Amino acid sequence: MDQETQNSLQTLSTIRATVPAIEELLYKVIPVLDHGFIRVIDYMGDDSAIVQAARVSYGAGTKKTSQDRNLIAYLMRNRHTTPFEMCEIKFHIKLPIFVARQWIRHRTANVNEYSARYSILGKDFYLPKREHLAAQSKSNKQGREDILNDKEAKRVLDLLKQDAAECYKHYEEMLNEDIEGNVLDDSKSNLARELARMNLTLNYYTEWYWKIDLHNLFHFLQLRADSHSQYEIRVYAEAMLQIVKQWVPFAYEAFEEYCLNGAYISRKAILVIKKMISGDSITQAESGMSKREWKELMEVIQ
Amino acid sequence: MDQETQNSLQTLSTIRATVPAIEELLYKVIPVLDHGFIRVIDYMGDDSAIVQAARVSYGAGTKKTSQDRNLIAYLMRNRHTTPFEMCEIKFHIKLPIFVARQWIRHRTANVNEYSARYSILGKDFYLPKREHLAAQSKSNKQGREDILNDKEAKRVLDLLKQDAAECYKHYEEMLNEDIEGNVLDDSKSNLARELARMNLTLNYYTEWYWKIDLHNLFHFLQLRADSHSQYEIRVYAEAMLQIVKQWVPFAYEAFEEYCLNGAYISRKAILVIKKMISGDSITQAESGMSKREWKELMEVIQ
Amino acid sequence: MDQETQNSLQTLSTIRATVPAIEELLYKVIPVLDHGFIRVIDYMGDDSAIVQAARVSYGAGTKKTSQDRNLIAYLMRNRHTTPFEMCEIKFHIKLPIFVARQWIRHRTANVNEYSARYSILGKDFYLPKREHLAAQSKSNKQGREDILNDKEAKRVLDLLKQDAAECYKHYEEMLNEDIEGNVLDDSKSNLARELARMNLTLNYYTEWYWKIDLHNLFHFLQLRADSHSQYEIRVYAEAMLQIVKQWVPFAYEAFEEYCLNGAYISRKAILVIKKMISGDSITQAESGMSKREWKELMEVIQ
Amino acid sequence: MDQETQNSLQTLSTIRATVPAIEELLYKVIPVLDHGFIRVIDYMGDDSAIVQAARVSYGAGTKKTSQDRNLIAYLMRNRHTTPFEMCEIKFHIKLPIFVARQWIRHRTANVNEYSARYSILGKDFYLPKREHLAAQSKSNKQGREDILNDKEAKRVLDLLKQDAAECYKHYEEMLNEDIEGNVLDDSKSNLARELARMNLTLNYYTEWYWKIDLHNLFHFLQLRADSHSQYEIRVYAEAMLQIVKQWVPFAYEAFEEYCLNGAYISRKAILVIKKMISGDSITQAESGMSKREWKELMEVIQ
Repeated sequence: MDQETQNSLQTLSTIRATVPAIEELLYKVIPVLDHGFIRVIDYMGDDSAIVQAARVSYGAGTKKTSQDRNLIAYLMRNRHTTPFEMCEIKFHIKLPIFVARQWIRHRTANVNEYSARYSILGKDFYLPKREHLAAQSKSNKQGREDILNDKEAKRVLDLLKQDAAECYKHYEEMLNEDIEGNVLDDSKSNLARELARMNLTLNYYTEWYWKIDLHNLFHFLQLRADSHSQYEIRVYAEAMLQIVKQWVPFAYEAFEEYCLNGAYISRKAILVIKKMISGDSITQAESGMSKREWKELMEVIQ
Repeated sequence: MDQETQNSLQTLSTIRATVPAIEELLYKVIPVLDHGFIRVIDYMGDDSAIVQAARVSYGAGTKKTSQDRNLIAYLMRNRHTTPFEMCEIKFHIKLPIFVARQWIRHRTANVNEYSARYSILGKDFYLPKREHLAAQSKSNKQGREDILNDKEAKRVLDLLKQDAAECYKHYEEMLNEDIEGNVLDDSKSNLARELARMNLTLNYYTEWYWKIDLHNLFHFLQLRADSHSQYEIRVYAEAMLQIVKQWVPFAYEAFEEYCLNGAYISRKAILVIKKMISGDSITQAESGMSKREWKELMEVIQ
Repeated sequence: MDQETQNSLQTLSTIRATVPAIEELLYKVIPVLDHGFIRVIDYMGDDSAIVQAARVSYGAGTKKTSQDRNLIAYLMRNRHTTPFEMCEIKFHIKLPIFVARQWIRHRTANVNEYSARYSILGKDFYLPKREHLAAQSKSNKQGREDILNDKEAKRVLDLLKQDAAECYKHYEEMLNEDIEGNVLDDSKSNLARELARMNLTLNYYTEWYWKIDLHNLFHFLQLRADSHSQYEIRVYAEAMLQIVKQWVPFAYEAFEEYCLNGAYISRKAILVIKKMISGDSITQAESGMSKREWKELMEVIQ
Repeated sequence: MDQETQNSLQTLSTIRATVPAIEELLYKVIPVLDHGFIRVIDYMGDDSAIVQAARVSYGAGTKKTSQDRNLIAYLMRNRHTTPFEMCEIKFHIKLPIFVARQWIRHRTANVNEYSARYSILGKDFYLPKREHLAAQSKSNKQGREDILNDKEAKRVLDLLKQDAAECYKHYEEMLNEDIEGNVLDDSKSNLARELARMNLTLNYYTEWYWKIDLHNLFHFLQLRADSHSQYEIRVYAEAMLQIVKQWVPFAYEAFEEYCLNGAYISRKAILVIKKMISGDSITQAESGMSKREWKELMEVIQ
């Protein structure tokens, strides 16, 4: 039994801000993709901590809950972001390396990753589900389009599986050691781990502890829960949305209303909207917007 | 009764990492300077959280406490700083504005400050104690030297007191309102708060919530608990050292050993030490070091 | 003659990205408020540097200017912010301390400030112009409303002037030294500068070098050039807008179109707009929006 | 001819701080590892810019060069790091993905990486030289030890070569497109690039623009030019050291003296040194240090 599972059996007393709903989730493995997961390891603060920081004046006393909700909505709406930085959450995450490479671009977090320089990486690699094997989008260089047909999909899965397996087999051979620490051949050297790891493919899983404040988490979620985000990172973002909803329900509600389901509109888009509201007709050509911009605006307002 | 005091009466259950010694300190006002204070509002993690992040491999199981202590010392000694980022602490601090101006230069923290744009600032200003009124150092442009004589000290205190009081009186007059929100003269306008505040002197107290991870807190403490740091910020750093000692005793012990009471020595200093150990004599002139550098080295090794 | 003025006489050869329009501005003092200023000290990159970073693939060759412009617009519209981080600018700024206190809250910049711990602060303090002396807004706790009448304005200016002057006189007396370094009274001590400074009011001017990348500068400008920003910081932001326009015209144009003159609209606001476009009537009450939200939306779309 | 090479033919006039020695290096490819490189793309500031920021008081006039050198040494020695943030440099770097994964952990930089989500990754992969194929260190879990014998080395190189080639071949097959954009088989789909990339091994090369200020670059170099750093990232750090030496010679000299060739010593180490200097004998056991700590100290002072 691991350390956290042991901890999870131990209920302690605290006078810190505590959220029963998130306590329920602590340490529990939430599966993501075929071998990945997210677990909440710790958290600091709750909706009240946001309000408290916004009010600062500590003598202001307890306000009614409805006021807290409104204040949080006000802060989110007006991009007063610092009070949201007063909450913090720590996750344990298992994710494919190519996902980790995207993820790490968010710099305002604390990270401790499993070190393949120091230890032997596990045997798990990501294999997309049949229904996620899609062709390159023609209109969007960063997107997917139609799902591959059965034959093509089978070929792709075979290649991914075979190459990942082969690379791992040779990884072990070069290490001359398996993940349990058993030496495979006494008469041979063990290649340094920091070198052997380079033979693994990018779909192998890694793990890390990732700690971030709520404001920066919302920024991450805005980008990564977006429909243009790659599926393999989006599923992690979606799992986190559910966690945040349990943890800070008022902040989550405001985030949904003002960020996740809102939209940026440009100066030209405002002019288009004004025209349309006043009943005048306006075409893409007249708007001065590009076809793509126009299409995106229409998706928002129609 | 304020919100935190209410919270402090409420003991809740948690399965998070919890430190009884710091629970004892939570919300309690620790006085600093004449009107300032520090209070711990929340914390995340403990010594084990550092170890956990360093090990990442969550299946590694509970190690003996002595091993944790050694691992933490190893991490500190080798400047493996990221595991220390996995602990977080939040303070409520009341401090003079000129101290806040130094403090805020540490950028890797989250801050929510009392807004004198939005609210009226309180009447408290900092007045140094008699024994802290020292003359400008002649050797160190950033330092203090001898304490002023009685007459001079009295004059300084009189000036500080009188100017601070006068400025606040006029602040209230311009606001046409006191801190309780009472309008002073119905026939007059209230100057905008964002303007009136500029009439206050830099020794007025402000307040903020300040949240930081343990690694960055250690960096702050290394600089601000140093003897070359200005007294008025150093006292806050010293109060924090005591708090950190309660919170993460192994990390604190390692910080003391490898940072606070250690030293950084230059290439030339290493050559000097080698000479001295081998019994050879060496002078400042021969060392290639400046007089000041030499003096500082001698303070470390003699 | 100061160092930068000398430099400015010296024209050198470079093969770096160079922008003639910003070269014209280099080192030149742009006055802001009564005694403040902004000067551009250095810059790195231009519009092409943004494009270059976005394309990364360095073999892609020079594209037509019109394509660069479209790519920059695309990046701004889709909040692909990292290419804008590839440009950097450095300013020398003189500003009142209470403005500096707001400004420094933007953490993603490099700053070196004049040290009143080390040196004596100059005699300049900010005195608002008659037309900027406004009463506290009743509807917005952070805002201003009507301009004070003549009598009230005169009283405020008298108080500000008198208190600032008095505080500075005593600052010099405590220092026992003037800004030129002349000792005032040989028989007396000089109070440490780090202490004496606390007697100055918040409208005294300080100076700093401030260096920031273009993405973070845009974020600063979005917040501080906004009409809800305090006038005394907004004027600095407005001066910067003109500088940025000269430096990176395509990026500036896109910033204006998609950020500065665009708007963020909430989920509810989108529903309201849809209704209105389809010719249906909808009231604030029906919209589920607060009165203030509704008012703000109407300001955007009507 | 690529865009930068074209630029490099164009000599422009500037009144910015300009360093002839680094102008010589601009855009030139410095090879690192078998297929990697570093190129300087742009820079801001020079040794004088550090001094200028430290002095801030812009009226102070030009000081003698010897004073600049001493001031820079003083700043470095006392960890006054902010003036070093006033210089900035931008690199174009080609590096293996497993090196990029270490590198990116330094968060205080700006990065734009080649996107294998958007484009097809090139065919270059890293193959260690014969003499860098070393066995896992037994004493240091993160290190290398003896070089493999010929037979073992050959086997490792064969495996690395074969797996990388096979994975790339299948990458192309899944993409149904080669790096030139030629479709391989008209009757088949192209798997989305964001998916196909997961089949590549970690020794494939990627590229990025990496921009960082001098203080943070020194921090990077302190860690990565260290002998405990992995060889494959250390060679990049070493190439950068030579660049920085050309760019800011005084800052580089101070960095060498006070950081790169200096050492941290602990409280216990100071006691040991004192004993040794006074001629007393002391053993590891008496020192209270661990064997490893003792060994490391002896390496510094003997």
